Amino acid sequence: MTDTTAKPLSGAGLRGQSAGETALCTVGKTGAGLTYRGYDVKELADKTQFEEVAYLLLYGKLPNRTELAAYIKRLKGLRGLPDALKAVLEQIPADAHPMDVLRTGCSMLGNLETEHSFDDQLNHIDRMLAVFPSIINYWYRFSHHGERIDTLAPEVDSIGGHFLALLHGKKPSELHERVMNVSLILYAEHEFNASTFAARVCASTLSDVHSAVTAAIGTLRGPLHGGANEAAMAMIQQWKSPDEAEEAILGMLARKDKIMGFGHAIYRTHDPRNDIIKLWSEKLAAEVGDTVLYPVSVRCEEVMWREKKLFCNADFFHASAYHFMGIPTPLFTPIFVCSRVSGWTAHIMEQRANNRIIRPSADYTGPENRPVPALDERA
Amino acid sequence: MTDTTAKPLSGAGLRGQSAGETALCTVGKTGAGLTYRGYDVKELADKTQFEEVAYLLLYGKLPNRTELAAYIKRLKGLRGLPDALKAVLEQIPADAHPMDVLRTGCSMLGNLETEHSFDDQLNHIDRMLAVFPSIINYWYRFSHHGERIDTLAPEVDSIGGHFLALLHGKKPSELHERVMNVSLILYAEHEFNASTFAARVCASTLSDVHSAVTAAIGTLRGPLHGGANEAAMAMIQQWKSPDEAEEAILGMLARKDKIMGFGHAIYRTHDPRNDIIKLWSEKLAAEVGDTVLYPVSVRCEEVMWREKKLFCNADFFHASAYHFMGIPTPLFTPIFVCSRVSGWTAHIMEQRANNRIIRPSADYTGPENRPVPALDERA
Repeated sequence: MTDTTAKPLSGAGLRGQSAGETALCTVGKTGAGLTYRGYDVKELADKTQFEEVAYLLLYGKLPNRTELAAYIKRLKGLRGLPDALKAVLEQIPADAHPMDVLRTGCSMLGNLETEHSFDDQLNHIDRMLAVFPSIINYWYRFSHHGERIDTLAPEVDSIGGHFLALLHGKKPSELHERVMNVSLILYAEHEFNASTFAARVCASTLSDVHSAVTAAIGTLRGPLHGGANEAAMAMIQQWKSPDEAEEAILGMLARKDKIMGFGHAIYRTHDPRNDIIKLWSEKLAAEVGDTVLYPVSVRCEEVMWREKKLFCNADFFHASAYHFMGIPTPLFTPIFVCSRVSGWTAHIMEQRANNRIIRPSADYTGPENRPVPALDERA
Repeated sequence: MTDTTAKPLSGAGLRGQSAGETALCTVGKTGAGLTYRGYDVKELADKTQFEEVAYLLLYGKLPNRTELAAYIKRLKGLRGLPDALKAVLEQIPADAHPMDVLRTGCSMLGNLETEHSFDDQLNHIDRMLAVFPSIINYWYRFSHHGERIDTLAPEVDSIGGHFLALLHGKKPSELHERVMNVSLILYAEHEFNASTFAARVCASTLSDVHSAVTAAIGTLRGPLHGGANEAAMAMIQQWKSPDEAEEAILGMLARKDKIMGFGHAIYRTHDPRNDIIKLWSEKLAAEVGDTVLYPVSVRCEEVMWREKKLFCNADFFHASAYHFMGIPTPLFTPIFVCSRVSGWTAHIMEQRANNRIIRPSADYTGPENRPVPALDERA
């Protein structure tokens, strides 16, 4: 979600212009930070699990105990991969971009389980929530290790735990499952960010849900949007100590290098998600006995604030947190997808419920009308 | 491109609001109709072939004779399908939506031939222009007829002719190749329509060209955008005579049924593309000895104008024209893709050349801040 290179062109990129209505989310409203349907994301991350948040976004309310149990059971039943989808994933080489894999997996799913009626939209959406961890991990383990995994085992209730179980081939610890839950909650929804807006533009032609989510995945792939946590990881793992990190950061600032994981297109002084994931990164550092990556990350935060008044966004401490759980860096942004698909699809349903095709105009800056020269009279 | 159901909500769908600049196209400017880089589409359709128009959009000028010959040769060399892509297409069932096939094919291509640097963008774009007819026809003939076609044969210079050659397994007539050329020119570019805008939103995160085109294909798939020519075909082929058509249309109007292929979100009195494709449809009707479909189409046009002052858009006479060339109705919108990919990718390059991430705001209509109730205290 982070746009660290945005140029201050007033009005460009529709910045600050309303492109529609939403009841799903507020970002950066005074005193509110980030809310999903009126609930503060900090409180949600403290008190709920991701499945409750997904239910909230998709079904409009927090589930009660019975509804939650039924929803978790339902999602668990939707984790299997069709054979044709496995065959497609097996054709994708190990050096492919994992976001390209998810984009293709989602698109292929739309061929096999096409949304023929909007009456079925929630079935398709729940399916995507449940199966995306299967898609990315099936491809990852096949392409990197030649293994054809059973995406139904080992059995774990939560989506975040399922992701880790498929990746590592064993049940995750309680702590790791909890951190994944928190991470998925933090990334679930963020108003009209670029990928969500792409999904709404697509949905506004009354296209199907797989097309809209495929569009969103491809949009999140861009380095100005998703991927900042991967870039942050690549940066911090170069450094052996906080002092080395500080020296390097100062050099980068002097050279005006891009530094990923700081600042935000909407938040001005603080990203409410950072406090939360930072705390969990610290706990994971203690668990694995880390004495480098977490202190390096903390020093980066201090230096960036002292020198530039730039704050960590949601992505920065996600890098170390994911790393401590043994997640390979190229899978960081796909986890973002496994979470944000809840927000995207809630927006798709909202767009459909009160639709007008999104078709803006443009200012023309090209040549005036001119005659077509004959082929032999052209320069 | 047609939005016949748009509700007159002022401002909704960003209608009439500028979302950026373009030098590629004007739509509906007084006295201009539709222009690509300042050239009137009618003149282009009369005097050029589609490869010249694609070159104009992508390379910024109409090619001279030497450049055009080199460009056609270059595109002809890019028609082959990688084995992994063939294997993926063979996994897609015959009853899949052809737009889902193209979306998946484009996405898969991005895994196999990833755009690692924007310096290579034109190579990837030319590749897509050349290979999309191969993707859709390879799948179509495999899934429907069990044939694994050679996408390089029979050899035809033009993209439109290549499409027909792959579909029918023989070189097309000169007339058919000419009509395909005209059709591809008419559909090539149309400013900030929804699919193009989706491509620009995606590109604005600095994502890759396959992601942006995949997003556009999924957006064009929607019945409010592409697909109007298919819907028009389904309608007109029900009727055995102009009188029967007139009676049925009057009934549909009385019942306020949707009638596809008429009216437009931007054009108010006339779609400049209609005169052109109508003329070619008439020529094709004469060639095949049609005495029903073309006269039925003409009567529909007369009745819709007389009763509702609604005019045919680009899609309406495309239906009969494609049908006369033996093209199955489900492949109509994929042809649109084979053309519009030139406009989409020209917009992607334009967006990249002066980029700011497209990230609008939204008006919040949801609940006020509220505390998260404990699980057992929820309704």
